[in-house]
Amino acid sequence: MTGLTIDQIEIGQSASFGKTITETDVYMFAGITGDMNPAHINEQYAKDTMFKGRIAHGMLGASLISTVLGMHLPGPGTIYLKQDLKFLAPVKLGDTITATCTAKEKLEKNRLVLDCVVVNQDGVQVISGEAVVMPPR
Amino acid sequence: MTGLTIDQIEIGQSASFGKTITETDVYMFAGITGDMNPAHINEQYAKDTMFKGRIAHGMLGASLISTVLGMHLPGPGTIYLKQDLKFLAPVKLGDTITATCTAKEKLEKNRLVLDCVVVNQDGVQVISGEAVVMPPR
Amino acid sequence: MTGLTIDQIEIGQSASFGKTITETDVYMFAGITGDMNPAHINEQYAKDTMFKGRIAHGMLGASLISTVLGMHLPGPGTIYLKQDLKFLAPVKLGDTITATCTAKEKLEKNRLVLDCVVVNQDGVQVISGEAVVMPPR
Amino acid sequence: MTGLTIDQIEIGQSASFGKTITETDVYMFAGITGDMNPAHINEQYAKDTMFKGRIAHGMLGASLISTVLGMHLPGPGTIYLKQDLKFLAPVKLGDTITATCTAKEKLEKNRLVLDCVVVNQDGVQVISGEAVVMPPR
Repeated sequence: MTGLTIDQIEIGQSASFGKTITETDVYMFAGITGDMNPAHINEQYAKDTMFKGRIAHGMLGASLISTVLGMHLPGPGTIYLKQDLKFLAPVKLGDTITATCTAKEKLEKNRLVLDCVVVNQDGVQVISGEAVVMPPR
Repeated sequence: MTGLTIDQIEIGQSASFGKTITETDVYMFAGITGDMNPAHINEQYAKDTMFKGRIAHGMLGASLISTVLGMHLPGPGTIYLKQDLKFLAPVKLGDTITATCTAKEKLEKNRLVLDCVVVNQDGVQVISGEAVVMPPR
Repeated sequence: MTGLTIDQIEIGQSASFGKTITETDVYMFAGITGDMNPAHINEQYAKDTMFKGRIAHGMLGASLISTVLGMHLPGPGTIYLKQDLKFLAPVKLGDTITATCTAKEKLEKNRLVLDCVVVNQDGVQVISGEAVVMPPR
Repeated sequence: MTGLTIDQIEIGQSASFGKTITETDVYMFAGITGDMNPAHINEQYAKDTMFKGRIAHGMLGASLISTVLGMHLPGPGTIYLKQDLKFLAPVKLGDTITATCTAKEKLEKNRLVLDCVVVNQDGVQVISGEAVVMPPR
């Protein structure tokens, strides 16, 4: 149960995690975070928005990035330092999204920079951003 | 169910949302995101880490920022464009954390920049970062 | 809240429990068990498998057997000793499955053997297996 | 997202998954399966049983075996054919259990037999059993 050290990771190496985002996920995420924005949980409101229906929380999609970092690359023992996120397109209920993180640069003091993207089933980037982590020693 | 327009928001205006983060929150967040990193769900592993026990997912704490933006400032109708995050300290199970967002700058094309912090019950900043949103028109 | 003793159970006696297995059940089961196998939670992956879509975890269907044993036959106070399982056909999201356990043989030391089957709405056996339990005294 | 083929697996190779089993897990498992046996969800009843308190469903612990098989060894694409289970000791709320599966024998027609055990934080075997799966081709 220990992830990769910075020396075991090659620049360009990547890992992914994908999931179909269901109404259940969105409702449970709303319950946990308290984010009851009607865009996520009120179809009557949401059908009149530019997205024509309820959409998942942006941070739910973004959290799949954390899944990749904490479980796969670098994996357990990783300390999450920074994440920046651009929300590029909505995730609709029923979309299948895949987060992929790619090792980009090694910094001093055991810092690893990764490029992260979340893409839907149609190949559309819904989120992108850079992570900085400390891999396990 | 409509939030504040950019003209209705004053620079320096802030809003907050706080919650005690329970084991249930962390376990459900793990289930939704697939992030079964042992730091979050395996006490036997976690007690030997530098945090001496299970901690919440960083993105769970960060998601409270989204709660403030989408429900209070600017509120419903807001489009979330960017978020950067620094994870400064762990959130332990049972900690009460409060996310506060403060309007910082208005940009052209209806963009609002907010300073965001998440603080625990001891006043320790656990997360900080800047958000860029489009308030509702 | 006490089940049947071994003397109160007749060979051939049976009990059942049925449920429509929803996407919510499968997603929560994935969250609890950590089993994020894409066959269960990734429609984009699953549609190209031999099952043409997401299926429930085999152990979710099998757990309905435990429901029958622990709640009905013998019921509360039962100690579960052994279970063998054959997974015969997939359970799709939306299938209604019914677990039935039938008392088969009494062994010494208060052991009861039961034949267990799980059948879907079309009468197809999806799981079969034998349980050994100690009924309450 | 494809697991190991039978040729890529060596006899003796093993994989594990561990988790602290919480009250939340047990209650959600009860809700999904309908197994409301008071041994799991009724402390007033359970404190007078031989286990002196509520215990997790045996099938919840057993399901971690499925997590190992479907996610790690052999991994995605695996078809689950058989599982036998011996329930050797109770899993109490708060116990940390680890399921480990070890490749034991290759049979004809792409069948792999694995020895499976679930062990708690004190090293006590709580479940053991043999699985038969078809690894992905």
